[in-house]
Amino acid sequence: MERLKDKIRDIPDFPKPGVIFKDITPLVKDPATLRLTVNQLIHPFLGKRTFNAVAGMEARGFIFGSLVAWELGLPFIPLRKPGKLPYDVQSVSYDLEYGSAALEAHIDSFNTRDKVLLIDDLLATGGTAKASCELVEKLGATVEACAFVIELDFLKGRDKLEGYEIHTLLHY
Amino acid sequence: MERLKDKIRDIPDFPKPGVIFKDITPLVKDPATLRLTVNQLIHPFLGKRTFNAVAGMEARGFIFGSLVAWELGLPFIPLRKPGKLPYDVQSVSYDLEYGSAALEAHIDSFNTRDKVLLIDDLLATGGTAKASCELVEKLGATVEACAFVIELDFLKGRDKLEGYEIHTLLHY
Repeated sequence: MERLKDKIRDIPDFPKPGVIFKDITPLVKDPATLRLTVNQLIHPFLGKRTFNAVAGMEARGFIFGSLVAWELGLPFIPLRKPGKLPYDVQSVSYDLEYGSAALEAHIDSFNTRDKVLLIDDLLATGGTAKASCELVEKLGATVEACAFVIELDFLKGRDKLEGYEIHTLLHY
Repeated sequence: MERLKDKIRDIPDFPKPGVIFKDITPLVKDPATLRLTVNQLIHPFLGKRTFNAVAGMEARGFIFGSLVAWELGLPFIPLRKPGKLPYDVQSVSYDLEYGSAALEAHIDSFNTRDKVLLIDDLLATGGTAKASCELVEKLGATVEACAFVIELDFLKGRDKLEGYEIHTLLHY
């Protein structure tokens, strides 16, 4: 995983003072490391492959999510910010430090028996991830596992996702 | 291409009355058709492979762009909406029907000799695509070609991209 960590760039004070942002653009710019990343994201699930759809959160989750879906030969379902999806949507709101946000998915995103693998680049406070799980479930499907490239352990996002299987490649 | 068209859903009056939105979510939900789409996006360039990086526009361009880069084994460079990228950025503004928008990329996105394939799902008025070309060039690289899943011919976006090689799978 050191090779992977080498491709994550620390940006101090972004998006606000005191925060160290984990920049994944060097990683997606390096085909060999990106391949390693996607393979590692998939790896723990290869034996059991109980899921049949992959969902990714806008926008960086679209990169990793669509690659994971592609490699597994599964449908990719985009979970989007409000107002972006053109068809009828289901929506889940969640609290941010200041204000609130929401995620949306088309009402026909899943079949009722779908078991879903959720993919995002980062597990931070867990707000977006938890909302994504709720959204998948509101749409009648089941969250089989969540996989992230990076987890910020000190933010304890994992606690918000109790009951879900979580897989993370890099811990900070 | 009929098989591909079957997976594009028309949504009338989105995002505003009179517009028919081309919804690509059924396409990314169908692994076989998505594979056909990505293969067709790449196809005209396979013989000449003169480019060495793939750029995709936020957010749907992240899906198709990262898959094209993956298949070609090339770096993927995200072109993002303002304020999203954490490192130093180059920016290009462009006019919309009402107001304006901008695209950003990290200043170290490309090497000076990079030849870039630009990928997005849709060529409409060409504003975003033109700005993307300018952004790549501002960063010292060259746009080798632009490829889109869908082109709305009646909006004449292609005229804005004169001098660039354009490849589109579906025309409406």
